[in-house]
Amino acid sequence: MDREALLKELVIREAPTKIFFLVIDGLGGLPVNGKTELETASTPNMDRLAYEGACGLLHPVLPGLTPGSGAGHLSLFGYDPLKYDIGRGILEALGVGADVRKGDLTCRGNYATFENGVITDRRAGRIPTEVNRRLTAKLAQEIKEIDGVQVFLYPGMEHRFVVVFRGEGLSDDLTDADPQKNGLPPEKAKALSPNAKRAEEVVNKFIERATEILKDDHPANTVLLRGFSLPPDIPSMEELYGLRCASVAYYPMYRGLAQLLGMEPLEAGPEPEDAFNVVKENRDRYDFFYIHIKKTDSYGEDGAFDKKVEMIEKVDKALPVLLEAKPDVLVITGDHSTPSVLKAHSWHPVPILLWSLYVLPSKVSSFGESECLKGSLGIMRAVDLMPLVLANALRLKKYGA
Amino acid sequence: MDREALLKELVIREAPTKIFFLVIDGLGGLPVNGKTELETASTPNMDRLAYEGACGLLHPVLPGLTPGSGAGHLSLFGYDPLKYDIGRGILEALGVGADVRKGDLTCRGNYATFENGVITDRRAGRIPTEVNRRLTAKLAQEIKEIDGVQVFLYPGMEHRFVVVFRGEGLSDDLTDADPQKNGLPPEKAKALSPNAKRAEEVVNKFIERATEILKDDHPANTVLLRGFSLPPDIPSMEELYGLRCASVAYYPMYRGLAQLLGMEPLEAGPEPEDAFNVVKENRDRYDFFYIHIKKTDSYGEDGAFDKKVEMIEKVDKALPVLLEAKPDVLVITGDHSTPSVLKAHSWHPVPILLWSLYVLPSKVSSFGESECLKGSLGIMRAVDLMPLVLANALRLKKYGA
Repeated sequence: MDREALLKELVIREAPTKIFFLVIDGLGGLPVNGKTELETASTPNMDRLAYEGACGLLHPVLPGLTPGSGAGHLSLFGYDPLKYDIGRGILEALGVGADVRKGDLTCRGNYATFENGVITDRRAGRIPTEVNRRLTAKLAQEIKEIDGVQVFLYPGMEHRFVVVFRGEGLSDDLTDADPQKNGLPPEKAKALSPNAKRAEEVVNKFIERATEILKDDHPANTVLLRGFSLPPDIPSMEELYGLRCASVAYYPMYRGLAQLLGMEPLEAGPEPEDAFNVVKENRDRYDFFYIHIKKTDSYGEDGAFDKKVEMIEKVDKALPVLLEAKPDVLVITGDHSTPSVLKAHSWHPVPILLWSLYVLPSKVSSFGESECLKGSLGIMRAVDLMPLVLANALRLKKYGA
Repeated sequence: MDREALLKELVIREAPTKIFFLVIDGLGGLPVNGKTELETASTPNMDRLAYEGACGLLHPVLPGLTPGSGAGHLSLFGYDPLKYDIGRGILEALGVGADVRKGDLTCRGNYATFENGVITDRRAGRIPTEVNRRLTAKLAQEIKEIDGVQVFLYPGMEHRFVVVFRGEGLSDDLTDADPQKNGLPPEKAKALSPNAKRAEEVVNKFIERATEILKDDHPANTVLLRGFSLPPDIPSMEELYGLRCASVAYYPMYRGLAQLLGMEPLEAGPEPEDAFNVVKENRDRYDFFYIHIKKTDSYGEDGAFDKKVEMIEKVDKALPVLLEAKPDVLVITGDHSTPSVLKAHSWHPVPILLWSLYVLPSKVSSFGESECLKGSLGIMRAVDLMPLVLANALRLKKYGA
C-alpha cells in the first residue's frame, strides 16, 4: 500500500489536538567563524524547546538534492516531491497572487521586442514595472477569452507577467513559445502530445492577438510564453490527514502553495509577531497552522549572514506569542537550507525541532545544526515528518493487527 | 531485485554460528522524572553488552507509525510489514493457541443476544468464561464440518471465541457478519469478490446452524463473526535465511506468529530464566532462537512504570544464563515501544543492542534510549536489522562482483 493510502486509513479525523508548523524559510546554514546563522543567533526560546523537544535534521528531498520552494514545502507536508511536481508557471502564478484552480493552464510571460522578423530583445529592454502594469491592463481588457477559454493576466516586475488560461481540456504538454535567444524568429508553442492540441491553439492565438494589440508599444511589442504548467493533481491535507488547515504566510507564493493543498489563507502583517497573533486568534477554527517566515531565506540568498541571524532572533523573540496559543505539537524547521556563504538554496539537511508532550526529549543545549545531530530524531527525510507529527498529535491509529 | 530475493541469494546456509534474538515486548518507553523505564532499570549485564556491542534505535514500520504486535514482529524478522499483513482473525486465533495452517480462514466470534429480529447485546451480557467454554464445546460437538469445510472452535474470555475454517478455496475477502451496534438486525457475511462466494456460504451456514443450536441459551443465543483472515502467504525464515529457527515464547500468540514463519516452538515456563535455560538446552539443534518476554508490554499498557522497570531488571538478572549458551550474535530489542505514560503501543523507535565479535563497539555507558542515540547503529528501520544480524553471524556472502 502506498504511504498516502496508508496514512489516510490510519488517521483519526476527529481529534482535539492543535498542530503549529513554523517554517523559517532557508533556515539551515553553514558556519562563518565556526557557527551557522542559527547557531550564532541568540534564541533562548527555541533553545528551551529544543531541550524539551525532539531535534534532528531533515533531508528535503534526498541527500545532495537542493529543492526549490515548491518541492521543499511539499515534502514538509508529507507529499513526496519526487511524485508531485509543481511547475514553474504555477509557482510564478502563485508568486504574483494569481487565483489558480484545478485544470488551469499557467505560464510565465515576457514582454519582448520584435523587429524585422526576429526577437531582438527577449526582455523588451527591461521596461519599467509601471509600463508593464499599463500594458498588462490593456491586454487584459482586450483579451478576456479565446475559443471559450477564459484568460487572466497578472503583471510582475519589469518585463514579467503571468497568464492563467481557464477552460476544459487544457494540457501543459507544450513547448515554450520562446526562441530562448535574441536574434532568432519567434517560436510558437507546440503540442508534445495530441491532447495538448487545444492548448497549443489557444496559446498561439493569445500570442497573435497580444502582438496585434501591442504593435505600437515598441520596445514591448510582442510576448514570449514559457513554463506551461497545470496545478498538480494532489489530494488536500484535509483529505489525507483529516486536518482543517490554515496558512499564515505574508508572501503570495506561499499562500498559493498552501492553497493548492487545501489550506485556507489567513491574512497577517509582515512581522513574525503578526503571524503568531493571527494563529492565536484563529486557534479554535483550525487543527493545523502553517506559518511561513520568508526573510531568512532572502537574507541567505543575499549573503547577508548577520541579517539572517537577526531575523532568526526576531522570530525567537516573538515566539512566546505563539506558545500562548498552546500548541499540542509545535514544529520549527525550514523548507531547505540557504547558507549565506552560498547565497543560494542548498542541499544541506535542515534543523528540525518537534515539540510535544510525547517526544523523547533530546536534551540538547540549543537549537542549531550541530546540536540537532545529537537529537532524538536523527537525520530523516522530510517526507517522513508528517506521520511523526500526526502521531505526536495522537491522530494516528495503530498499524496492523 | 527485491530484498528477499537478494538475501536468499546471498545467504550462507551452512554456518556454525548461533543467533539469539531476545524480544522484550514494548521495551521502548518515555521518561518519568527524566528517565525511561529502561533507563531507570538497573541492568548491569545489558549495560556491559551495550558498551561492547552496537546500539541504536529501530523504527518498527516507519517514523510515526505505531505497530500492532504482528507488524512489529514481522519487521524484526526482516519481513516488510507494509508488504505482509497479519489479519485480526489470525492474531486472535494464534492468541487462543489455535492450530492455523496455510489456507485456513480464521475469524473472531462473539456470543450475542438476538431478540425480536435485532441484536440486543453484541456481547451477550459478557457471559462468564465457563459458560463460553460449555457453549463452545457444544457448538464444536455439533458443527464439525460444513460443505466439506472442517470447522474448529476455540473459546476465549467472556463472550469471545475463535473459528478456524479449513478447506479448499476459502477467501477472506468478506464483510463482517456483525451489525457493529446493538439494536440492529443481524448481518450476514458478504463476499467482496467473486472468489469469496464459497467462504460467504460456509460462514453464513455456520451462523445459521450455531443460532439454531444456541436457541435455548439466551442471552447467548446467536453469534457474530468478524475480522476474517487467512494466514499471510509468507516464506519461512529457513527458506529466506537458511536458518533452523526455534521460538521460546510463553504466550500462545507469539508462538503462533513464530510458527507462521516456520519456527519450531519450544516449551518454557513463564520466567526469563526458564526461557534462557530452554535455549541453553537446545543450542545445538537450531541456528536461531527467538525468545519473547511479554510482561514488559503488559505493564506498559497498564501504565505501571515501576513494574515495567522491575520486569526489565528481572530479564537482566537472568541474562547470564543465556550468555552461558554462548551466542555468536545476540540481539536485545523490542517489537515496539509501550511507554507507561501512554498506556499503549507507540511509534517511538525501540532501543536495540546487537552484540557480536564483529561490531563497531558503541562504548555507551548503558542500555537505554538516550545512550542508544549515540550508538554505532544510529536510527534504522527494523526491517533492515536481519541482514545486519546475518552479516554479524558471518552468514552473508559479498554482494556484487
